[in-house]
Amino acid sequence: MPRNQQILLDNRPEGEATASNFKLVTTETPPLQDGQVLVQHHFLSLDPYMRGRMNAGKSYAQPQPLGEVMQGGIVGEVVESKHPRFQPGDKVVGMGGWQQYSVVDANQPGALRKVDTTHVPLSHYLGAVGMPGVTAWYGLVKIIAPKAGETMVISAATGAVGSAFAALAKARGCRVVGIAGGPDKCKYAVDELGFDACIDYKVHKDANSLSKALKDACPAGIDGYFENVGGMVLDAVLTRMNAFGRIAVCGMIAGYDGAPLPLTYPALILVNRLKVEGFIVSEHMEIWPEALAELGMLVGTGKLKPRESIAQGIEAAPEAFLGLLKGRNFGKQLVKVH
Amino acid sequence: MPRNQQILLDNRPEGEATASNFKLVTTETPPLQDGQVLVQHHFLSLDPYMRGRMNAGKSYAQPQPLGEVMQGGIVGEVVESKHPRFQPGDKVVGMGGWQQYSVVDANQPGALRKVDTTHVPLSHYLGAVGMPGVTAWYGLVKIIAPKAGETMVISAATGAVGSAFAALAKARGCRVVGIAGGPDKCKYAVDELGFDACIDYKVHKDANSLSKALKDACPAGIDGYFENVGGMVLDAVLTRMNAFGRIAVCGMIAGYDGAPLPLTYPALILVNRLKVEGFIVSEHMEIWPEALAELGMLVGTGKLKPRESIAQGIEAAPEAFLGLLKGRNFGKQLVKVH
Repeated sequence: MPRNQQILLDNRPEGEATASNFKLVTTETPPLQDGQVLVQHHFLSLDPYMRGRMNAGKSYAQPQPLGEVMQGGIVGEVVESKHPRFQPGDKVVGMGGWQQYSVVDANQPGALRKVDTTHVPLSHYLGAVGMPGVTAWYGLVKIIAPKAGETMVISAATGAVGSAFAALAKARGCRVVGIAGGPDKCKYAVDELGFDACIDYKVHKDANSLSKALKDACPAGIDGYFENVGGMVLDAVLTRMNAFGRIAVCGMIAGYDGAPLPLTYPALILVNRLKVEGFIVSEHMEIWPEALAELGMLVGTGKLKPRESIAQGIEAAPEAFLGLLKGRNFGKQLVKVH
Repeated sequence: MPRNQQILLDNRPEGEATASNFKLVTTETPPLQDGQVLVQHHFLSLDPYMRGRMNAGKSYAQPQPLGEVMQGGIVGEVVESKHPRFQPGDKVVGMGGWQQYSVVDANQPGALRKVDTTHVPLSHYLGAVGMPGVTAWYGLVKIIAPKAGETMVISAATGAVGSAFAALAKARGCRVVGIAGGPDKCKYAVDELGFDACIDYKVHKDANSLSKALKDACPAGIDGYFENVGGMVLDAVLTRMNAFGRIAVCGMIAGYDGAPLPLTYPALILVNRLKVEGFIVSEHMEIWPEALAELGMLVGTGKLKPRESIAQGIEAAPEAFLGLLKGRNFGKQLVKVH
């Protein structure tokens, strides 16, 4: 019965999320029943979607329940098993949440998946070769459906989704332009991630100014846009979309803290005959094998070199998460717990 | 050389369009050259898209040139022909514009089309069995792609597009709810056009109030929405869309006069995984034959009984057009010129 530190959602944010919304508690893991597996977590995944689930309002998923362990993806190692398919030492990906251990009912479909760490480091299964990578793949391949020579743009360009998006779009012969916060991230996007250009949105005070920068970076206009942030960035991109452009809407992090951010020129959807489509990658499990195969190949051949920001210790998770929402991370944000 | 009264665009609107933007002139039709046809116009079509083209700004089409005849669809009769495929007396559909006669280069593909008036009155080729009907067909069939039992909503419900949309959606086993202005239009939508319910947007002072009315009229939520107006109506409909709903964006008449109308909650596109797609029916000529065949059948069998508002005389076109923009028409707005 190992001692298990956990982070619970203690209360819901009013406006901006803060560390006081979370509570650290210590319990013991319960004894295993038949079909269950005890997983020691190595890394927790921190992802922007978690902010939306901290609110009580209607969203695509049930809100994160109060007083329960923050939900989220983990990678780790089986330490005890009462399920024939899992043995101690197996490396696994699951949804164990913000804690040091989880007890998993391994008969539940998709609850726990064994992974091979020969060519892909374990932590990457939470990023480039995991949910964020597949998210980039679905938005690019299934919604945007790019043609060689087209121009693709993505916001939050140096995050886990953005870096995978760049590699996938370059592999399809596209020009890829990122939008990120700060000169370091923009330099990294171009030097390391393969972006053809990257725009620092922080030097632009309004959508009009950002739109001019996009015009320079996208001389042939924008054919596909992968939306992670909403607000001013979306307004600016819409003014540069080509006729028959496609926008995959994956996140609107700028509006998560309260006041909704309006879209200033919705008529551009008509004027430019755009397709704008929202999606959640967990609703499209049928494409995961194909997507993971391509992402694994890109990582294995060095064409996708994802960076990670790693916070140390379970107690660091809340501050690391709040930093992620403010864009303080550099690449995939993880928490190392063992 | 018949005397030909014409309406020109004299100057561009600043804000709301007015009669002073137009000018009536009288000319003579030029002598025919080989391959040309002289068409006497019977009816002019007035359509909301023309308002967008009166502005100078970037849009999907070139702006209507100043000092030239207002462009638009017509039906009429060939009175003289130097083209072997057309004979005097032929009933035709063309793009002759706001004038009493047009000289058409009949070799230009799609410039002039002979129509059969045995079962379909000539004027309907500008409405239910013409561009507006095909517009409804494309948005419903190709973008919304409804399933039997789903709930469809359309704004500007009693217009030429709305009435065709209702018949097409009922034929596919859907619940169809209209949004229109005033109790007379709403009664007509339900009594004559086959809508299951119709909401008078004029009694709702804001999107919140309209959203409540939509909840009552669409107890199972909204799966498909055909957008003609934008603004408050779009905001209200978005709050009632079901997961995986589809929105066909055909017009945003509420924003044509100047100040852009923002979309208040774009994050709902993500929350409900919506697809929002703008289109222009003239870019999809490949579907016209299939669409016209179904629309002709619906009219011929009495399942689609389109109403027309007919203004008398070419000089009445500007006021009739301005009335259309304010929703004063009842059904398809035409001008009878001969």
